[in-house]
Amino acid sequence: MDMAIPAPRSRALRTLSWLLLISLCITLSDSASLQGSRPRLGVRRGHNKQKGDLFGQSLAASFDYVNHDYQTFYYDQTLDHFNYQPQSYATFQQRYVVNFKHWRGAHAAAPILVYLGDEATIEEDVGAIGFMLDNVGPLGALEVYIEHRFYGKSIPFGLPREEAWKNATLRGYFNSAQALADHAEIILHLKKNLSAEASPVIVCGGSYGGMLAAWFRLKYPHIAIGALASSAPILYFDNLTPSNAYYTTVTDDFKEASVSCYNTIKQSWAEITKIAAKPNGLSILSNKFNTCKPLKNRTELLDYLVNLYSVSAQYDSPPDYPVNRVCKGIDNGSQGTDILGRIVSGIVAFGGGQKKKCNDLADFYSSETLGGWDWQTCSELVQPIGCGANDTMFYAQPFYFNEYKDYCVKKFGVVPRPHWITTHYGGHNIKMVLKKFGSNIIFSNGLRDPFSRAGVLENISDSIVALYTKEGSHCLDIMSSTKDAPDWLVAQRKKEAEIINGWIHKYYEDLHMISSSS
Amino acid sequence: MDMAIPAPRSRALRTLSWLLLISLCITLSDSASLQGSRPRLGVRRGHNKQKGDLFGQSLAASFDYVNHDYQTFYYDQTLDHFNYQPQSYATFQQRYVVNFKHWRGAHAAAPILVYLGDEATIEEDVGAIGFMLDNVGPLGALEVYIEHRFYGKSIPFGLPREEAWKNATLRGYFNSAQALADHAEIILHLKKNLSAEASPVIVCGGSYGGMLAAWFRLKYPHIAIGALASSAPILYFDNLTPSNAYYTTVTDDFKEASVSCYNTIKQSWAEITKIAAKPNGLSILSNKFNTCKPLKNRTELLDYLVNLYSVSAQYDSPPDYPVNRVCKGIDNGSQGTDILGRIVSGIVAFGGGQKKKCNDLADFYSSETLGGWDWQTCSELVQPIGCGANDTMFYAQPFYFNEYKDYCVKKFGVVPRPHWITTHYGGHNIKMVLKKFGSNIIFSNGLRDPFSRAGVLENISDSIVALYTKEGSHCLDIMSSTKDAPDWLVAQRKKEAEIINGWIHKYYEDLHMISSSS
Repeated sequence: MDMAIPAPRSRALRTLSWLLLISLCITLSDSASLQGSRPRLGVRRGHNKQKGDLFGQSLAASFDYVNHDYQTFYYDQTLDHFNYQPQSYATFQQRYVVNFKHWRGAHAAAPILVYLGDEATIEEDVGAIGFMLDNVGPLGALEVYIEHRFYGKSIPFGLPREEAWKNATLRGYFNSAQALADHAEIILHLKKNLSAEASPVIVCGGSYGGMLAAWFRLKYPHIAIGALASSAPILYFDNLTPSNAYYTTVTDDFKEASVSCYNTIKQSWAEITKIAAKPNGLSILSNKFNTCKPLKNRTELLDYLVNLYSVSAQYDSPPDYPVNRVCKGIDNGSQGTDILGRIVSGIVAFGGGQKKKCNDLADFYSSETLGGWDWQTCSELVQPIGCGANDTMFYAQPFYFNEYKDYCVKKFGVVPRPHWITTHYGGHNIKMVLKKFGSNIIFSNGLRDPFSRAGVLENISDSIVALYTKEGSHCLDIMSSTKDAPDWLVAQRKKEAEIINGWIHKYYEDLHMISSSS
Repeated sequence: MDMAIPAPRSRALRTLSWLLLISLCITLSDSASLQGSRPRLGVRRGHNKQKGDLFGQSLAASFDYVNHDYQTFYYDQTLDHFNYQPQSYATFQQRYVVNFKHWRGAHAAAPILVYLGDEATIEEDVGAIGFMLDNVGPLGALEVYIEHRFYGKSIPFGLPREEAWKNATLRGYFNSAQALADHAEIILHLKKNLSAEASPVIVCGGSYGGMLAAWFRLKYPHIAIGALASSAPILYFDNLTPSNAYYTTVTDDFKEASVSCYNTIKQSWAEITKIAAKPNGLSILSNKFNTCKPLKNRTELLDYLVNLYSVSAQYDSPPDYPVNRVCKGIDNGSQGTDILGRIVSGIVAFGGGQKKKCNDLADFYSSETLGGWDWQTCSELVQPIGCGANDTMFYAQPFYFNEYKDYCVKKFGVVPRPHWITTHYGGHNIKMVLKKFGSNIIFSNGLRDPFSRAGVLENISDSIVALYTKEGSHCLDIMSSTKDAPDWLVAQRKKEAEIINGWIHKYYEDLHMISSSS
């Protein structure tokens, strides 16, 4: 019984719904911040204890990184690296954070690990990225985190974030190529200041930050000797990946957890539509779903559910896999045995089993950085994610570029450049192109993450490799290690460390060879 | 007897003098245009018969390429690829020229050879680049020439050249990164329009265009499978190459031709200075050097001579090596046996032996594109070329960045970014960086060319190779073949063709492997 709902969703919401999904390399704690009724500004990833509580009840207190050997610096960053108008020379303060504690120093040409910030304040990352914490010690490495321009405290000219984002002239400088050039400048500046020109640099990032890490290695091989790109969907541009890859993977995750759960979800959309069409339909649905505010339209509810299932799949991590939890809720339907009653039980289960006072349908739109990401995806980072009528457990949500464009033009006054990412960074025939060009990139993924389908999942060459786990989720490998991490995750992390160790050793060999021959 | 003249040259001229030297991948015909008393707009490289006449008397008539199977197209180019302000979306008409005659077509995935224009109108190159002409036939390749933004007819918004260059806002978009992105867009557009997505692209360029070709392969490996970078001094940035490399090589070229010639030149500066210091010194010098206009200062004359020797060395090509010719003139001094008399004989010899009515000291500044190049070198392409008091046959002309900066600020209102090229494109430790990163670049050079000292002269890896000839000069390898080309030049060109053939064959192998495995 296939069901095709015409889905008259508002363009803005439809766009935002998937924008959100890629927006943060969030762990459970961030799911929590998305789920909570207030923005969790400054909650840091990885500091959560991962007790399986999606509401973040178990979050550690804010990590006071300033008192943990981390020092904050600001770099006078050039506003526009690719233009020489007088106004391009304006500078702004870009934040980066350094931990010297483990570094064996410039005299030893000890490594520098750099975490490339993404669409969030860097505060969320400092001291919270497991990959960094686990490796700086053994490598005797300098630990560096660089904030992405237009996020956190790296907003040109110290303006309030929203003000900078709303300025049509200023936000023009807010894009990935400028961000990569920022990173290049800061890394060189830091090395020069520390007389550490000989120290090898490894860059790392997750999600959008993972794309940046891979692209940084490709565009600035003279600055980073290698990159760990965690959950980087660098192939979700142009037509490189089927548009429905994301939602079919969410669907697969749910089907694998429970076929009956999958069927219930699949049937729910028609049920919602049927009720919504009644004279008092929205009121019935508002009651049924215990919404904090009365539903204004059917779309609000549909988006909320799509996001809930998507987030569950994207962050479907041990020890308490959210997809399983949601499906247990749905299958065991304590709220009644009708379809929508089961769905409501799924929502409660997603929230940890405690029925909330009410469900805030705006939860998934509460990220502080969503506005910046909306701009980035409306200008250059156009990922054409959608699905058809019969290919997923969802209703039809095709991606129509013209609709998307109209939304962006209306909101930002500019037309997205849908082919720019593949023009500038490549992607087509990636295997053939990079087989003999480039080296030292790890593309890591967890296959439960629906974005993994647009990641690099096959080795490209001896040193451009794909490391994925069947059981893993979005950015799981770079998040904080826990004692109860499953073996496959420990193994993935160990392999990453080994490979990077290999790059560094080879670098020292080459360095030594060149020093001794000159 | 070392001599150090304080050299109070005007900053503008000193800057221009070396700007000029790199400015064009000129053949003898261009030397001619520099030497002649009027600008030779549209004189095309390689169409000259190379009869050894530096004055260009033997130049062929203007090459009417439109009637030689070359078709001119214009692409709607984005003004700013790295910015998303509304004004960044403005487009301008960028010219490119295509010859379909030899192309075996998209169905055969036949190659595409693209010549990347440099700081000149593309008209000078179309049908004039020997590398293109010699190889499109055997390869069955599409022959493409792309004009560089802000030169020729590719001036944003169809403005007169000088007007665009003078506009401080508009010229901000005039730089190498934007130019490379232009090339990327046009090549992809062309391939798409011809359904030639599978056709391998080889890019080629000389001098600044050679740098662009190498950088294009490094930054856009997904678009070009390989690059021929002829006489590309990509290492004349920052402190990668000793500042005096250029002038010491000019000196070596002269010394090798004749030690007495070298000594005469070396002594001449003090002689000029001594005479200039007399009450009527400039008048004496004007008469002696038969200048078209009375000398306003000593510097005019010094610059003229420095340029004359430099151009002679840079384009010291067979069959009639200009350095030898100048030195014969100096050594055989028909104008008298005093030092300056010998120098004057050298000038006459440089001009082909016919004494001109008068010597126009502005000859070396008459290039139509010098204004554009002046901007490019004052913004990003800062090559710190100079020399000390005792290291060359010249007087001291140290490169002081602060002086240079002052000149640029005064002229253009912006500060040059002396470290940007190495930040963005690399250069430090190039051998180590590119040994395991990148592939398929030929760096070709001729060692008589003083710029060759800042080129890549050692193989970096199996496929990033250096091909140089001891006897060659600036860009000689890519210029038109002549029947009397010496064996070493024929061999260099043949080797280039073989290597590129190898890349293309490997590409087809990979393509076939992938097609048959999928």
